[in-house]
Amino acid sequence: MFSRRHLTLLTDFGVRDGYVGILKGAIARVDPSLAVTDITHDIPPQDILSARFCLLNAYPYFPEETVHVAVVDPGVGTQRRGIAIQLDDGFLVGPDNGIFGGILCDRADDIVSVVELTASKYWRTPNPSRTFHARDIFAPVGAHIATGVRLDKLGTPIDPESLVRRSLPHAEREDGAIVAYVQYCDRFGNLITNVPNAWLAEKTWQAIAEDRTIPQGQTYSDAEDGSAVALLGSHGWLELGADRTSAAELLGLSVGDRVQVKYS
Amino acid sequence: MFSRRHLTLLTDFGVRDGYVGILKGAIARVDPSLAVTDITHDIPPQDILSARFCLLNAYPYFPEETVHVAVVDPGVGTQRRGIAIQLDDGFLVGPDNGIFGGILCDRADDIVSVVELTASKYWRTPNPSRTFHARDIFAPVGAHIATGVRLDKLGTPIDPESLVRRSLPHAEREDGAIVAYVQYCDRFGNLITNVPNAWLAEKTWQAIAEDRTIPQGQTYSDAEDGSAVALLGSHGWLELGADRTSAAELLGLSVGDRVQVKYS
Amino acid sequence: MFSRRHLTLLTDFGVRDGYVGILKGAIARVDPSLAVTDITHDIPPQDILSARFCLLNAYPYFPEETVHVAVVDPGVGTQRRGIAIQLDDGFLVGPDNGIFGGILCDRADDIVSVVELTASKYWRTPNPSRTFHARDIFAPVGAHIATGVRLDKLGTPIDPESLVRRSLPHAEREDGAIVAYVQYCDRFGNLITNVPNAWLAEKTWQAIAEDRTIPQGQTYSDAEDGSAVALLGSHGWLELGADRTSAAELLGLSVGDRVQVKYS
Repeated sequence: MFSRRHLTLLTDFGVRDGYVGILKGAIARVDPSLAVTDITHDIPPQDILSARFCLLNAYPYFPEETVHVAVVDPGVGTQRRGIAIQLDDGFLVGPDNGIFGGILCDRADDIVSVVELTASKYWRTPNPSRTFHARDIFAPVGAHIATGVRLDKLGTPIDPESLVRRSLPHAEREDGAIVAYVQYCDRFGNLITNVPNAWLAEKTWQAIAEDRTIPQGQTYSDAEDGSAVALLGSHGWLELGADRTSAAELLGLSVGDRVQVKYS
Repeated sequence: MFSRRHLTLLTDFGVRDGYVGILKGAIARVDPSLAVTDITHDIPPQDILSARFCLLNAYPYFPEETVHVAVVDPGVGTQRRGIAIQLDDGFLVGPDNGIFGGILCDRADDIVSVVELTASKYWRTPNPSRTFHARDIFAPVGAHIATGVRLDKLGTPIDPESLVRRSLPHAEREDGAIVAYVQYCDRFGNLITNVPNAWLAEKTWQAIAEDRTIPQGQTYSDAEDGSAVALLGSHGWLELGADRTSAAELLGLSVGDRVQVKYS
Repeated sequence: MFSRRHLTLLTDFGVRDGYVGILKGAIARVDPSLAVTDITHDIPPQDILSARFCLLNAYPYFPEETVHVAVVDPGVGTQRRGIAIQLDDGFLVGPDNGIFGGILCDRADDIVSVVELTASKYWRTPNPSRTFHARDIFAPVGAHIATGVRLDKLGTPIDPESLVRRSLPHAEREDGAIVAYVQYCDRFGNLITNVPNAWLAEKTWQAIAEDRTIPQGQTYSDAEDGSAVALLGSHGWLELGADRTSAAELLGLSVGDRVQVKYS
């Protein structure tokens, strides 16, 4: 027997105004038995890059076939497309503006299907608001997928190559050194770079940012008082942290800033 | 077979202190299978007007028969009544202080029943705290309604006419102009007025606030750099927004301030 | 038939970064039918004392056998133990750093079993991250307990006497006066002391803080304009509150500060 798929929400709506509650109401109207998990609703307003990272980061921890509805959508109501993507291990629903670019990176072979959401039968209303597609299109469509509706019912197939992508420069290795970038700053002020842990495991190295060397450690508590520490982060990337304080403030770094690593 | 009704919570408790978790514990004690959705817990402390708007705004998106427990309750422990209201499409539970005034406006004919909550059998304890009726009365009573308990079991019938109401001045139309008010400011700084979209659809008009004309648009991205835009909002009312910035700050407006609209 | 136990989460992760969503993903991977309730994720970073209070405060309102996963864990990745505790009315899972000290206080006889979490079979991975035990160990272990796994499967028994505890000085009574301490400050600025209400019920008394007498009241609205009020709080302790403002600011008090009570 087919049982319901798990459903997640990720937005920049905040939880103050009741918008997220409304999304859940719209989902419950499709099927009140669906289980909905919030990944986060506190993406900085219209910050597609942070949303891209948070979704990429959370995706692997959910059950197979989970449906992720992600909406950070500065272009709502313009010509940007609404899309649903089926991967071999999950579903993505939201605007085609690069928010899924992190998950899709290097996964071209895992894409089963992509559609533009044109079948208004699966929307909350055939006359959606121009400013709230999350409520009128994306949440109801995600709910229908979670109940088992196939993507080919939801709209017109589109070429995966045509999807909007968005990324930082890749981390690059050359001559025993790595040039990389900060891809996210969490609320503790930990800076997550785009250097994969695998490039550093079982090696000796040191991170350098703004001409300062950041000593290598294994946990945040390895940081000396008032200093940052570089460690293999739990997200799978090199992370700059500190002990009970903000590495971002200590180092004066933010998303997009450059970090170097030297093997020694 | 009777299945459980959907249950929502709306409060000004914030999520920092664990109070909301406690409400859910009290609900699970009544029936652990109930599904609970948060509308918001970040109403500004004791701001009944904002709560009134958020609940009014979320109500239509939930399934029929949903039970809404809403508690912004500066008068807790005083003589204000605790009430439950059955409408033809849902239930409301909370203090009688105007928090339900938005939903009840113009819906006198849809009220099935109103009771004052006096039957302590359906409370968490017959000796409720004087300062936490949400935990001891409203959440458990909402949970009992969600499991199917009838209102006449919960207390003494009261006259719907006696309910506390609370409202802004209505928007008024005369001589080709509308005088209206801001009824809510969301976390993006979008200003939601009390002019129904229906008064403006398929007409040409311009909004005026603080002697400044705000151009008409269709989406936030229609706003010119550094300017506000007036549009038919997704909530069903004329909204003043801006492109990736706060209209409230651009215009210097907040809840209760006056906005005019001229047909042209 | 055994049905699922209720599961709660309490952390200092905030909800901005998606970490809490990831915990719920890890739980859903163990059993997608588990119901998860957030107590709070907004404990001030690494503030074990506030976490200790919030958990102590919420614990009694949940159903019997609820599994509480609580993670405020500045020592993650060091030698501190990961533990699970079975009480006669619930389960606790998290780091052994005093976070459970409030619940365990005076309940030595109610402890059924304590284990150190060493059986990696019940973790998300046998190679957990050094910085994210909540995701890799505590949430999955909590989920397994909620599905009915017995504690003796999860690791090595340890002596309850060896658990880390952590507390404020107790409130003390002598010569008709009480010397006590503020144990929590909530987001409204209400100050919760560690004087049990039972010491004050049906007596006449007055609270004194920083040489100022705080009049006794029954509800927050009994406070005079701009003054604090002392009342028997809904948490079960003497509380210093104010009417629609912050008692902490009015009185200049915070966690750990001393409060006196005199019987009169």
